[in-house]
Amino acid sequence: MSEPLRIAVAGLGTVGAGTLKLLAVQGKLLEARCGRPIRVVAVSARDKGRDRGLDLKAVQWFDDPVAMANAPNIDVFVEVIGGSDGAAKQACEAAIASGKSVVTANKAMLALHGAALAEAAEAKGVTLAYEAAVAGGIPIIKALREGLAANSVKRVYGILNGTCNYILTTMRQTGRDFADVLAEAQALGYAEADPSFDIDGIDTAHKLAVLTAVAFGCRTNFAGVHVEGIRQVSALDIRFADELGYRIKLLGLARRTEKGVEQRVHPCLVPVGTPIAHVEGVFNAVVAETDFAETNVFEGRGAGAGPTASAIVADLVDIARGAKVPTFAVPAGQLADLPASPMASHVGAYYIRLTVVDKPGVIADVTAILRDNEVSLESMLQRGRSPGETVPIVLVTHETREENMARALAKIAALDTVAEPPCMIRIEEP
Amino acid sequence: MSEPLRIAVAGLGTVGAGTLKLLAVQGKLLEARCGRPIRVVAVSARDKGRDRGLDLKAVQWFDDPVAMANAPNIDVFVEVIGGSDGAAKQACEAAIASGKSVVTANKAMLALHGAALAEAAEAKGVTLAYEAAVAGGIPIIKALREGLAANSVKRVYGILNGTCNYILTTMRQTGRDFADVLAEAQALGYAEADPSFDIDGIDTAHKLAVLTAVAFGCRTNFAGVHVEGIRQVSALDIRFADELGYRIKLLGLARRTEKGVEQRVHPCLVPVGTPIAHVEGVFNAVVAETDFAETNVFEGRGAGAGPTASAIVADLVDIARGAKVPTFAVPAGQLADLPASPMASHVGAYYIRLTVVDKPGVIADVTAILRDNEVSLESMLQRGRSPGETVPIVLVTHETREENMARALAKIAALDTVAEPPCMIRIEEP
Repeated sequence: MSEPLRIAVAGLGTVGAGTLKLLAVQGKLLEARCGRPIRVVAVSARDKGRDRGLDLKAVQWFDDPVAMANAPNIDVFVEVIGGSDGAAKQACEAAIASGKSVVTANKAMLALHGAALAEAAEAKGVTLAYEAAVAGGIPIIKALREGLAANSVKRVYGILNGTCNYILTTMRQTGRDFADVLAEAQALGYAEADPSFDIDGIDTAHKLAVLTAVAFGCRTNFAGVHVEGIRQVSALDIRFADELGYRIKLLGLARRTEKGVEQRVHPCLVPVGTPIAHVEGVFNAVVAETDFAETNVFEGRGAGAGPTASAIVADLVDIARGAKVPTFAVPAGQLADLPASPMASHVGAYYIRLTVVDKPGVIADVTAILRDNEVSLESMLQRGRSPGETVPIVLVTHETREENMARALAKIAALDTVAEPPCMIRIEEP
Repeated sequence: MSEPLRIAVAGLGTVGAGTLKLLAVQGKLLEARCGRPIRVVAVSARDKGRDRGLDLKAVQWFDDPVAMANAPNIDVFVEVIGGSDGAAKQACEAAIASGKSVVTANKAMLALHGAALAEAAEAKGVTLAYEAAVAGGIPIIKALREGLAANSVKRVYGILNGTCNYILTTMRQTGRDFADVLAEAQALGYAEADPSFDIDGIDTAHKLAVLTAVAFGCRTNFAGVHVEGIRQVSALDIRFADELGYRIKLLGLARRTEKGVEQRVHPCLVPVGTPIAHVEGVFNAVVAETDFAETNVFEGRGAGAGPTASAIVADLVDIARGAKVPTFAVPAGQLADLPASPMASHVGAYYIRLTVVDKPGVIADVTAILRDNEVSLESMLQRGRSPGETVPIVLVTHETREENMARALAKIAALDTVAEPPCMIRIEEP
């Protein structure tokens, strides 16, 4: 076991360069922990000329990551190129086919092809490791796959996108609107120029699909994730939520249901007394609810060069130490093919904000529709009065089926006295 | 790898019985996750006749745990007897000597003999696993030893004793005094009849000594832990802390210092904005501050049959899967022998509550003593006035050395106008 673990790193962006820096800084520590050195023997990136502040003299350069994946004398292929398909996937498949373990931070690829890649890796007797793909520096994959391995998971959920959490936190702290805070986040580099991957919930959905597979021992099913982003969350809703004792967070949630698994990404009202409500700014957190260990909460940095490199190198340490654990906690051939539970059958409480004309009878019309659709009210808030003008009304319902709520909302939206499309945000109780 | 993993369980109290129940309930799931069944082949306990609600017909009974540890046909010895020495230690040593892996929940034994047991286990090529020894159902040992293996830990601290946290939480929520809440906790079964192990900080110190070893790769050094409990925390201090924006928590903390490691257990004021401040009741939490992953917070159930059994069986799953990881993250022979940093050289801020006679010049005397001992004040609080009578005064200092603070407090205590021994609680900033 004292032979070096020879690794090749494909992609030298923030994360790839961060990984090489970590390996250089911690070399001695890692050798003690692994019983052998971890040695970077090859790298590949698009632009060889760019100065990344790395000493690459002793390292073989590949222009083509697939050629590097096929090269001999490499034990582990580290993929930090990104993208669900294309070069990243081709290179990972080639690495596995040629008997190399793969360490990847690529949530999109895993969300879409995780089960197939796991099957290929396990058939070849190599490891497919992906701690960095979900929640950055938080060792949540290891926690679910190993630390909580004695448990059945009932529900797993979390704040998985730091950009969204930063925007929602700033909106609450400053009272400013979404578009304004997004523009600032872009200027500060916390949000991309094209922010849709983050703010439309797609990044969270990719991570959720991976979490779901490892938590429930099922095949990754990105197509089965219901996805909504945070564009519709207004400063007004954040203020009303606050008044009602809630915070608004973009959560990714997966829950085992009778028939399958419910996977959803959408803004949620979470009670202020819960740990997840206190996760602010760019931090991520994951909550795992299990039968024996009960509730565990994991909080930390979900992105950035250091935390992501920490996760990648943790996977390398595992491989260097000779760990052999099924990719998604059970062997790939035994992963359950769980059907996606439709949102129509989701059961939960709802926050509804209506913009109504302030005149007699409006509330009676709204509440009659709710009653007729089996939605019962827990509370109602109205702030300010201006007869003949529009005013906001907030309703909080008891638990009901989503299909009832949707039917009621369609009827409410059609009322003459309801001026704007209703705003609906699901409430998530611990 | 399809041969069953044969285990023997020594001790059938809450945790031992809970472990057998978990193994019975999750048998199929665990077999899928391990690729082989985990089979209980032997048990030992003091009273064979007691009904524990377990089916032990197919299991060999031993009266003597050491005899069981020496028995053939056992792969793993699970020790849940407890106690730092005596039968527990003898049996673990015997199990290791006869080539069996050991899974233990015994923090006292590990705190006092952890390094020696690790050396013995690694010399024999067997595993010594102890996830259940610290923070119950929170997989914190795995997180430090594997999940964060790419990092140097700067500081690790946590709420490691649910009884103390329950008492402090209830004191804050109800305004009641320590003795009163302790008596209630005893009646409810949350505190032992003899509560000193918990409330005097010894249990926390045992757990901290184990955390320190795995976080810093050093030999366990229980004697090097500075230990204070919560008996001196008053309802008045909790109220003042609240007013100043703090919660009072019993923390176990370990920090790498220039010369060695500082390990301390004592009540702390923690800012209300920090995750640790929101950990309430019987919950535990651990915060790990590292160089690359930055800050990670782990929260969950620190005790109870289910969470502790979850941790024990996670260790069994690791062994069944063939994991080989050094006991305290680096091989036992390479564990550093770090000297204990003395409390005198601790640097931090302090909360001081004085009971002084309400007359002119008192504050001037106190502040002069602080100045003369290089302690500078951040704020001062006085509530109520009653000339000639005693009143409480609260001082919050800037960072200073503990020896300065101690010298100043001795002089302040000697003032004629100071009616009671000063109350000092350290402030811990994130």
